[in-house]
Amino acid sequence: MLDDKILSCFKKNEEGYISGEEMSRELGISRAAVWKHIENLREEGYGIVAFPHLGYKLISIPDRLTEAELGWRLKTDTIAKKIYSYKEISSTNDTAHDLAMAGEKEGSIVIAESQTAGRGRMGRKWTSPKSKGAYFSVILRPNILPKEVPGITLFSALSVAKTIRETLSLDAFIKWPNDVLIDSQKICGVLTEMNAETDKINFVIIGIGININTKKEDLPKGATSIMEELGRELSRIEAVRGIFKNLDKYYKLFKSGNIGEIIKEYKEFSNFLGTRVQVAYHDTKIEGYAIDVDSDGALILRMDSGLNERILAGDVIMLR
Amino acid sequence: MLDDKILSCFKKNEEGYISGEEMSRELGISRAAVWKHIENLREEGYGIVAFPHLGYKLISIPDRLTEAELGWRLKTDTIAKKIYSYKEISSTNDTAHDLAMAGEKEGSIVIAESQTAGRGRMGRKWTSPKSKGAYFSVILRPNILPKEVPGITLFSALSVAKTIRETLSLDAFIKWPNDVLIDSQKICGVLTEMNAETDKINFVIIGIGININTKKEDLPKGATSIMEELGRELSRIEAVRGIFKNLDKYYKLFKSGNIGEIIKEYKEFSNFLGTRVQVAYHDTKIEGYAIDVDSDGALILRMDSGLNERILAGDVIMLR
Repeated sequence: MLDDKILSCFKKNEEGYISGEEMSRELGISRAAVWKHIENLREEGYGIVAFPHLGYKLISIPDRLTEAELGWRLKTDTIAKKIYSYKEISSTNDTAHDLAMAGEKEGSIVIAESQTAGRGRMGRKWTSPKSKGAYFSVILRPNILPKEVPGITLFSALSVAKTIRETLSLDAFIKWPNDVLIDSQKICGVLTEMNAETDKINFVIIGIGININTKKEDLPKGATSIMEELGRELSRIEAVRGIFKNLDKYYKLFKSGNIGEIIKEYKEFSNFLGTRVQVAYHDTKIEGYAIDVDSDGALILRMDSGLNERILAGDVIMLR
Repeated sequence: MLDDKILSCFKKNEEGYISGEEMSRELGISRAAVWKHIENLREEGYGIVAFPHLGYKLISIPDRLTEAELGWRLKTDTIAKKIYSYKEISSTNDTAHDLAMAGEKEGSIVIAESQTAGRGRMGRKWTSPKSKGAYFSVILRPNILPKEVPGITLFSALSVAKTIRETLSLDAFIKWPNDVLIDSQKICGVLTEMNAETDKINFVIIGIGININTKKEDLPKGATSIMEELGRELSRIEAVRGIFKNLDKYYKLFKSGNIGEIIKEYKEFSNFLGTRVQVAYHDTKIEGYAIDVDSDGALILRMDSGLNERILAGDVIMLR
């Protein structure tokens, strides 16, 4: 797109100015066309100022989750080499699924400013208020068995929690298996879906929903946003870029067989280990002390009988 | 379709005759139209004879895998309540996948006279010569975890092997995990695919390909057909209906938690237990005595070290 090319011109001249004439020459379009595209960009929220004798200067960008902004000089090996961004979509996981079925490469991202039918785990709804959070899906094609997929859920939650701690110094924790919490309230959920043979993964879709600049009143009970906890708005672009970088790093670790390393870090972010919990799955509820997470991503519960149970799926409630 | 309605008329009058006038009244169409549809059916291979003063009589049906023939008075609870039949299709698993994504009920079947891109396990090709074998896929929506899906592969292979033994008295065996063999040659393969969250199955597609009346020269090396082993052609319709009934029976057992019962029968059909085998998976090969199949569907190998290994995926080669 020409708008993207104009943004590239600005970015190549980050410190300085670029004249309409220069842009017209570089893009092979008339000066009137340059002016028209500058106007388009301004309408989209880009701050572009014209200085007499100097030219145009890009002084601010909108906090929109576009390929141009998210992918700008992003140094990753696999994640986000290609980004499909949408203003509104029914569910980023569904669109990612369709792309993956059609052969899309691993690492590609589907991101949307809002979802009309965002999904959470176990068929639950995920609230996706417009332009406040980040809702994206990642396509992966790891050479693993279906039973190893839970490890992907774990490092995805870890990537989000770690980005928040590193860049914002907020105490983000993980509740098994995949909720990221601040002050015991949910700010992020991960929905991992797979398409697989019994002995071969065709693809995995990681769906990540994060409440970034969302107001508490727009969220379900028990949920919060980074803004609410931080006390100020933050750049969604920077937050998402940070998560992409961590996802890239942990996916590399995962593929090289270092699940042990991932679990170790994951456990450092856990808020449930050592506490008494109840785990609900369908109609079953079991209670015990959460003592470990094993290399399959299973939660190990010490039962009152003294025996340990391996839990593969369910919702954890912490009992005090 | 009107052709199907005419077939139903015949089937309601199985022993006798039905006049063109009667059919015309029952279906609310002209006698000329009845005649035209009778001609259509004859062209499709139905043997319909007209007896003066008595009417038409259906004396033979073509061995075509249509919903009308396969579903005729089939008594099952879940399997094949709906059958989508095609003359040619790229892959029954792919069509079943699309139907399942669009919400198709469990038990529905996609069946084709031939596949242009039939797939086997691990991305291999499955040869599907026209109107000689049976190539079909079953959509299931069990309330299980991804790790339990291998059980579905096991009872699918068991359903095929058992149908062959029961109805044809041929010694069909199963090679772990899902090949059905007669005289050490493959007559059937099962490709189980799933679409799942880490803790919830959205749907499972069982793809079954069986060489029924196929000539050995039309099959890859190491493969045979039921016809070649039996020494005569057989009704594909009856074979497939028999498999539907067994799939229905074992799926019921599986859903009620009786995987132990299934594994027990599966092991009775096994040709690998007690033999020395090599299992290849990607670049890894391991060797040992196949001593058991556990309730997760894993193959238990006794290694030369004396220790047991649980094998979750791979291809078995029997060593003599």
